Amino acid sequence: MIRAVGLLGGGVIGGGWAARFLLNGVDVRLYDPAPDAPRKLDEILANARRAYGRLTLAPLPAEGALAFASTPEEAAEDVDFVQESAPERVDLKRDLLAAASRAARPDAVFASSTSGLRPTLLQSAMTGPERLTVGHPFNPVYLLPLVELCGGEQTAPETLDRAAAIYEHVGMKPLRLGVEIDGFVADRLLEALWREALWLVNDGVATVDEIDDAILYGPGLRWSIMGTFLTYRIAGGEDGVRHFMEQFGPALQWPWTKLTDVPELTEGLLDTLERQSDAQAAGRSVRELERLRDDCLVSVLQALRVHDVGAGATLRSYESSLLGRSPTLSAHDAELRLYETRVEPDWIDYNGHANETAYLRVASRATDALLAYLGTDDGYLRTTGSYYTVETHIRHLGEALAEQRLAVTTQILGVDEKRLHLFHRVIRDEEVLATVEQMLLHVDVTSGRAGPARPDVLARVERLASAHASLPPPDGVGRRIEIGGRRRP
Amino acid sequence: MIRAVGLLGGGVIGGGWAARFLLNGVDVRLYDPAPDAPRKLDEILANARRAYGRLTLAPLPAEGALAFASTPEEAAEDVDFVQESAPERVDLKRDLLAAASRAARPDAVFASSTSGLRPTLLQSAMTGPERLTVGHPFNPVYLLPLVELCGGEQTAPETLDRAAAIYEHVGMKPLRLGVEIDGFVADRLLEALWREALWLVNDGVATVDEIDDAILYGPGLRWSIMGTFLTYRIAGGEDGVRHFMEQFGPALQWPWTKLTDVPELTEGLLDTLERQSDAQAAGRSVRELERLRDDCLVSVLQALRVHDVGAGATLRSYESSLLGRSPTLSAHDAELRLYETRVEPDWIDYNGHANETAYLRVASRATDALLAYLGTDDGYLRTTGSYYTVETHIRHLGEALAEQRLAVTTQILGVDEKRLHLFHRVIRDEEVLATVEQMLLHVDVTSGRAGPARPDVLARVERLASAHASLPPPDGVGRRIEIGGRRRP
Repeated sequence: MIRAVGLLGGGVIGGGWAARFLLNGVDVRLYDPAPDAPRKLDEILANARRAYGRLTLAPLPAEGALAFASTPEEAAEDVDFVQESAPERVDLKRDLLAAASRAARPDAVFASSTSGLRPTLLQSAMTGPERLTVGHPFNPVYLLPLVELCGGEQTAPETLDRAAAIYEHVGMKPLRLGVEIDGFVADRLLEALWREALWLVNDGVATVDEIDDAILYGPGLRWSIMGTFLTYRIAGGEDGVRHFMEQFGPALQWPWTKLTDVPELTEGLLDTLERQSDAQAAGRSVRELERLRDDCLVSVLQALRVHDVGAGATLRSYESSLLGRSPTLSAHDAELRLYETRVEPDWIDYNGHANETAYLRVASRATDALLAYLGTDDGYLRTTGSYYTVETHIRHLGEALAEQRLAVTTQILGVDEKRLHLFHRVIRDEEVLATVEQMLLHVDVTSGRAGPARPDVLARVERLASAHASLPPPDGVGRRIEIGGRRRP
Repeated sequence: MIRAVGLLGGGVIGGGWAARFLLNGVDVRLYDPAPDAPRKLDEILANARRAYGRLTLAPLPAEGALAFASTPEEAAEDVDFVQESAPERVDLKRDLLAAASRAARPDAVFASSTSGLRPTLLQSAMTGPERLTVGHPFNPVYLLPLVELCGGEQTAPETLDRAAAIYEHVGMKPLRLGVEIDGFVADRLLEALWREALWLVNDGVATVDEIDDAILYGPGLRWSIMGTFLTYRIAGGEDGVRHFMEQFGPALQWPWTKLTDVPELTEGLLDTLERQSDAQAAGRSVRELERLRDDCLVSVLQALRVHDVGAGATLRSYESSLLGRSPTLSAHDAELRLYETRVEPDWIDYNGHANETAYLRVASRATDALLAYLGTDDGYLRTTGSYYTVETHIRHLGEALAEQRLAVTTQILGVDEKRLHLFHRVIRDEEVLATVEQMLLHVDVTSGRAGPARPDVLARVERLASAHASLPPPDGVGRRIEIGGRRRP
């Protein structure tokens, strides 16, 4: 679909693009004249890899290759897509895009990360100006799905289609604007809020920390789920939007806000902002704050995924597409390696290592992967039946720590028409941390009682079982739990 | 701490207050002259109970008692706290507060939910005006922690202290403003954004759905974690806030936004808003949308709790305080009932019932509760050691569905100096859905090896074990997993 991108600019935004493309298996050629660009990019990439390790349990492709280009032309040569993320100066962006457009393939798509400049101004000097769209992302680019698409006067409609498809491929949510305006949509909203926030600081009404608290303990929680309009529809209750507007609309005319002007960025205001912001950061570096933000974003994205809402829905469909791209299991593997994951921070209990439930969780995912391989897909679940676990025996042999990588290997111990006897090993590198022995029973969807699996499913599992019959019986199989001589005091 | 509150007004906000207080064990006397107030309150309460069932695993107190009052005086009589949530009209609020203040005890604290009216205007006719503060909450009041406190000219400082303590008791985050202004802080920020959003609709730039998407797929995700100032501090990277302001501040002067005026609420604009909002709701009722919002809010709050950030930190400290308030276990119970919970929606797998890991999860919590009862507290973990699970045997006997209530009963099967043999039953009403048999090993904190538990812990567990020795041995104890005659094909 997309194999290589050229990036013009490698700052916070350009570096974020590099991370998103690389982690999705796309090669990146980056042009950035700043001498410390490679170091900054390394730091962004480290954060992004950390976040992706927790973001999804679906298999990610092998990372793309990163190369630095010494000119914009070199970055654009023979790539499918060029994303420009230079500072917000029309002349600079226009010249970079013009240079890159002369060197690029005619079918390459161009996008600018500008947060407010109209694309008509940026495309004027390009070879093939119809290939440019705005593709305005949000920081951190590798985690937030939103990207605003906005074409200029010369932009071809198919440029927007192709850019949208590329962004969706790497897990994003393209929002196509029908009208070309300065600042697009999101930044107009952000800026309105920020202007008011600056006035509140300027007038000594509240500190930056208090203003941030006024968002993140209240309205900000809603904004990850629903925008202002849907939120107010709900707040209006049963009486509807029109009633709500008639009730609260007039308050908009009250002199609550100072939106008619922008506070002057005097030395005094800059000093205040700097002092209060330092106090708010409380000694935490930008990198530390980034990691905290990313960890929280990942957790919030996963929370929303459960409900298939907003960015959680985007994540869910991205995961489906990752699963569709992954190689299938080999049926001939003597040792089935069905599942890999990282230990998530919220699996850690007060002892500082993974809670006992974590080992069953990963084994359960391996069982799911095995069942999917056997052919018990959605249709099978609806029309035939399903394997249910009836008994599980866990032995704990070692401790997993946060963010360590775990894998599960699975051995089939026995099978009959209705039953499936499995032995999972949860391993870190070569060390077995837990064994999870399970008996599954096939339940018929119509009767709700035990019943035989479908012949093709049985044939597949019996093939695996035969392959595994030659493996030595696992240590600890068939154990029961007891205290030696003192079973009951 | 607080036993009864009087509420003036029972709409979306007043009903939300009723839910928050009742679910925290506080009695509520509600005055609302609307004939359908009891029905609306019932619906809000049903939503709130549903949300609280998932919000925390800490034990909530027994629900407070609800009574309807026929006058504001009756609602205020002999309560500790009065919260006014009438429509946003100065005269109405002033009169209600004045009437209630005459009937209330002199030590009662008063708060107004007004989203923008200055408290000086509201307290003028009160008996004891020094008792009034603004306590401005956010919808849904029973879930969002933020409450803005703002005193008027006559407000006593201790009124703010006492109101803050009451709000914290019911799990909220009071934000005290030092300056009295119209609209306080959060609503000024919300309104700035909303004005701009209304312009974008008015000018046909974007629909309400697109504007909402521009928030919730991008900046809105950040706002549940960090406010604008900390977000921009990070975006500025290593160069600091001052550099960021110097770079992006001038853009605030560009003509991106139309903040100098408010769009007129013409019939045409109201029609557009109504039509687009209906399309966005896609046939979902306000109650449905509320439940979706609440489910997501609960999940987001729990996601943030993992990282101890923002509203997640508020939830965490609220839970600690709930634990501190809960009654202790009786050591003499023959059947230990250690843990109760509801089945959370994200425990449900593709078969439509609780995933196999859910049963171990609740049993594991029961084990934690038992260990806490035995005295293995933070200090013990640091200085002596901890019980680790070394082996677990689970039998699945029935299926739990979403939101059903589960309890765990625990029987001690055996104990020696280093080992503890437990048998948990996971039950729904009287039905046993799963049994979880566990062997725990006491590990010494210094050596990292098995070692004896502290004598007082051992004494406590032996007392329980003796009480349990007279119970019949559980069905299914000491089982091993096997397929009858065909263990290995």
